[in-house]
Amino acid sequence: MAVNLGSNNLALRVWFMTHRTRDVLSRCEDKVFGKYGLTSEQYSVLATMKSLEDPVRITDVARWLERSTNSVSMIIDRMVKAGLVKRVRDKSDRRAVRLSITSKAEAALKPAARAALDFVQEVTSPLSPDDKRTFINLHEMVKHKAFQCLNPGVSIEEMRDNDITTQPDLMNRLCQYLSISTHKAKHDGGKKKKARR
Amino acid sequence: MAVNLGSNNLALRVWFMTHRTRDVLSRCEDKVFGKYGLTSEQYSVLATMKSLEDPVRITDVARWLERSTNSVSMIIDRMVKAGLVKRVRDKSDRRAVRLSITSKAEAALKPAARAALDFVQEVTSPLSPDDKRTFINLHEMVKHKAFQCLNPGVSIEEMRDNDITTQPDLMNRLCQYLSISTHKAKHDGGKKKKARR
Repeated sequence: MAVNLGSNNLALRVWFMTHRTRDVLSRCEDKVFGKYGLTSEQYSVLATMKSLEDPVRITDVARWLERSTNSVSMIIDRMVKAGLVKRVRDKSDRRAVRLSITSKAEAALKPAARAALDFVQEVTSPLSPDDKRTFINLHEMVKHKAFQCLNPGVSIEEMRDNDITTQPDLMNRLCQYLSISTHKAKHDGGKKKKARR
Repeated sequence: MAVNLGSNNLALRVWFMTHRTRDVLSRCEDKVFGKYGLTSEQYSVLATMKSLEDPVRITDVARWLERSTNSVSMIIDRMVKAGLVKRVRDKSDRRAVRLSITSKAEAALKPAARAALDFVQEVTSPLSPDDKRTFINLHEMVKHKAFQCLNPGVSIEEMRDNDITTQPDLMNRLCQYLSISTHKAKHDGGKKKKARR
């Protein structure tokens, strides 16, 4: 079998690095969010809920987190038990259930989000702005290829529409929530767009 | 608070992309390895065990996977129940327990490793060799910074020594296991180095 070790080695190292970096980041995040009584998974759900428009349904959270409705539903079950989230029956549609953040979660989320932003700034500080853009672009290429492996029929455009990382609106809302005052954030403040369902 | 939204946005996007890419990759891997009755977590443990020298202990696996001994121990418990791994009492040191791969796991591992390599090649195919090197380097920078956040006292050198992704030996052994015949792999075949404990 005449496969080139060099090229395999390079591809394998990309794969390992993608995993290991994420693993180390996750451990850091558990440490960061642990201070506020949250796991990084719980934080992701709460930050996503905060970035979406009411009413927030499990399917919305799952779509933004690019996870299955089933797995998000299980996380939500645990968060309900932990007193972080409530399931509320929709008044207009009795069959529909929307999610709401409890005051306990609300109290943890804001300082956690601030700490998250500090951590993100710190951990990406060795990268120049150009490095960051390159890093994002290379990730996008790998991610889109992986997404195609997962969903052979879906077009790149459809992927992009569903991609939280390419949604400036959502990013702005997150920054606004963190009370980051900038011209751009202020300018966009009034016109929240309805998230695509 | 005069924080620059542009720079925050860029750092946040790096963070999101790191997570999302890994998440999508994990889902792909579950699909790839699922065909051979393995989860991606089980595959990681088996591939690591295969790359290490006997006797393999939980602490070795944990070190290579950069996870806590506790969490790897729980994974091993489940793998023992699934008939993939055995815990064997060491003859020379009765208190020590080494791990061994069962024939069931052995039968799944080789085709799974082949499929993994095909998948890794496919998913990294949009990246040129230079892109891959850049991608690895940028990951390394973020990962080392994250590692420093996690272990404030540890030096970069110590990190590198413990880093599976910078171990050409281990990579070569993995490629050899996959029967990839190259001059480099053949050349290195005879001189397996003892993994650092």
